[in-house]
Amino acid sequence: MNEPKNVAIVGATGAVGVEMLQCLEQRNFPVKNLTLLASARSAGKRMTFRGAEIEIQELTHDSFQGIDIALFSAGGGISKEFAPSAAAAGAIVIDNSSAFRMEDDVPLVVPEINGDQALKAPRGIIANPNCSTIITLMALAPLHSAFGLKSIIASTYQAVSGSGAQGILELEEQIQAMAKGDPITPKVYQHPIVSNVIPEVDAFTESGYTKEELKMLHEGRKILNLPELRVSCTCVRVPVVRSHSISVTAQFDQEVSVEAARAAYAGKPGVAVRDNPAERLYPVPLDTTGKDDCLVGRIRKNLVFNNALDLWVVGDQVRKGAALNAVQIAELL
Amino acid sequence: MNEPKNVAIVGATGAVGVEMLQCLEQRNFPVKNLTLLASARSAGKRMTFRGAEIEIQELTHDSFQGIDIALFSAGGGISKEFAPSAAAAGAIVIDNSSAFRMEDDVPLVVPEINGDQALKAPRGIIANPNCSTIITLMALAPLHSAFGLKSIIASTYQAVSGSGAQGILELEEQIQAMAKGDPITPKVYQHPIVSNVIPEVDAFTESGYTKEELKMLHEGRKILNLPELRVSCTCVRVPVVRSHSISVTAQFDQEVSVEAARAAYAGKPGVAVRDNPAERLYPVPLDTTGKDDCLVGRIRKNLVFNNALDLWVVGDQVRKGAALNAVQIAELL
Repeated sequence: MNEPKNVAIVGATGAVGVEMLQCLEQRNFPVKNLTLLASARSAGKRMTFRGAEIEIQELTHDSFQGIDIALFSAGGGISKEFAPSAAAAGAIVIDNSSAFRMEDDVPLVVPEINGDQALKAPRGIIANPNCSTIITLMALAPLHSAFGLKSIIASTYQAVSGSGAQGILELEEQIQAMAKGDPITPKVYQHPIVSNVIPEVDAFTESGYTKEELKMLHEGRKILNLPELRVSCTCVRVPVVRSHSISVTAQFDQEVSVEAARAAYAGKPGVAVRDNPAERLYPVPLDTTGKDDCLVGRIRKNLVFNNALDLWVVGDQVRKGAALNAVQIAELL
Repeated sequence: MNEPKNVAIVGATGAVGVEMLQCLEQRNFPVKNLTLLASARSAGKRMTFRGAEIEIQELTHDSFQGIDIALFSAGGGISKEFAPSAAAAGAIVIDNSSAFRMEDDVPLVVPEINGDQALKAPRGIIANPNCSTIITLMALAPLHSAFGLKSIIASTYQAVSGSGAQGILELEEQIQAMAKGDPITPKVYQHPIVSNVIPEVDAFTESGYTKEELKMLHEGRKILNLPELRVSCTCVRVPVVRSHSISVTAQFDQEVSVEAARAAYAGKPGVAVRDNPAERLYPVPLDTTGKDDCLVGRIRKNLVFNNALDLWVVGDQVRKGAALNAVQIAELL
């Protein structure tokens, strides 16, 4: 982090792109020059970074000359098309899409968990994991170190900002409509999202699981280097603007108590325990929004399995689940 | 059901009480005379039943002379105080509160599952189970019959109407406030419920589980007559007006396939399968609101355990989770 870098954000106007810019600024990332890239539609608009206005440029294959680090968050299609050009031009790509996550020669990194992997990127591409996976693993990695993780059963409560700016707009419009008693016509989601929950995040696969649900399985195995880890997940969209919550049942190799689990988080960066039932203390999405730390609470002995805990983890999925994690990866380089 | 009965509703003005009245009317329950009972505050108000206005009377210990069936839904305290008086006056009490559910000489009944139990009520009191428990068991009972249920892991997405009329009002007020950009001050819940989810339903116990979470364990064992059943549950309030959703992992004694599971629902009353991933078909709360049937979807092989399924069940918790179930019990008498 000594020498300032030329940094590009691809998808600068999206929910995650905007947050990436803020993370670079707030964390005093050593930026020499910041290049903002987006579609032709956004080119020419301006965004403010450290008090200076930067004009957004249209993304092309020639956008990456002189760029040291390219933060991509414009969807898998854009990443597949343009990340190789960025890497060929000498940039290290940190890609927030799912395009390269499962490729063997692309590290998949949560800095607090497997940050060492970021230094081995033979293709010049490092992948940022799925948001729910990052948040869930932030809660489970300290427990895995202490007790050995065997399996995860998870149900998610995912915010609409996980669908980008259009998801936020959809919920806001439907809240206005519900307040006025107007009819609600869903556009982004298959059903109205206000006063509803929708058990469909990303596309369905042949198995009946959605792609999103299988990410926690495949990405979790890769990040934790646990090829035998078993994961079963149900992903649900809820009418929350920001921050994902996950109800987790985790089974361990060794015996685990609630006290030992709470103690396992001591000194662990990026995750904090908020867990005092007697005081009605537990995490909720509004507590983590705009914050770096994931919060863990409701830690208790699972009543079905031995050596298992139930817990509740909440994190800002735009921030730790995406932009912050990408900038933290950049800090490792 | 041949001879018309004198029926009383205790808590007639509450969310469930209003729904009980509608269920009696819609199902053509043979009512001779309907008595509406509530607190002094509501006494004198009128409600309409079969086109006739009925004046609400103040609940007293002398309210039950000549009553055949007393439907209670005014909270556990009222049930504990007044249900014995009703039974002593000769009424059969069907109690929607948790006051008597776990008492050995009080049957706990879901008509489709253990309706035979309603005929054995030595104290003249029959208990209506917890709403999330009813909806979850409506999905699991057909699978239990076919494959033998061993354990349940559940995460709930519970509507605010589960907190009664005040819960609905709280969400509606907060939606108005959010639409206008006004500040939000929670009253009913510990946190704002609009754009948030709250993993606290009912009071915390020493175990770290809430009472609501333990109901699915204890009531599930009693209803299914499975004293060894293992259940671990996380109950979460979501900003939905009506209908609870539950993400369920169920383990069985025998091998089970998705096709066999779907087939197990054929001809089973009160529950329907809505499950076609290729067509993006699955249940959501808006689909079940005001409807009698619970809907089951997202049925798939659990990826952690053998002989286990993940599934998603949704039901109107004011209706099948409370009022309808109580009226169905009355129909059995």
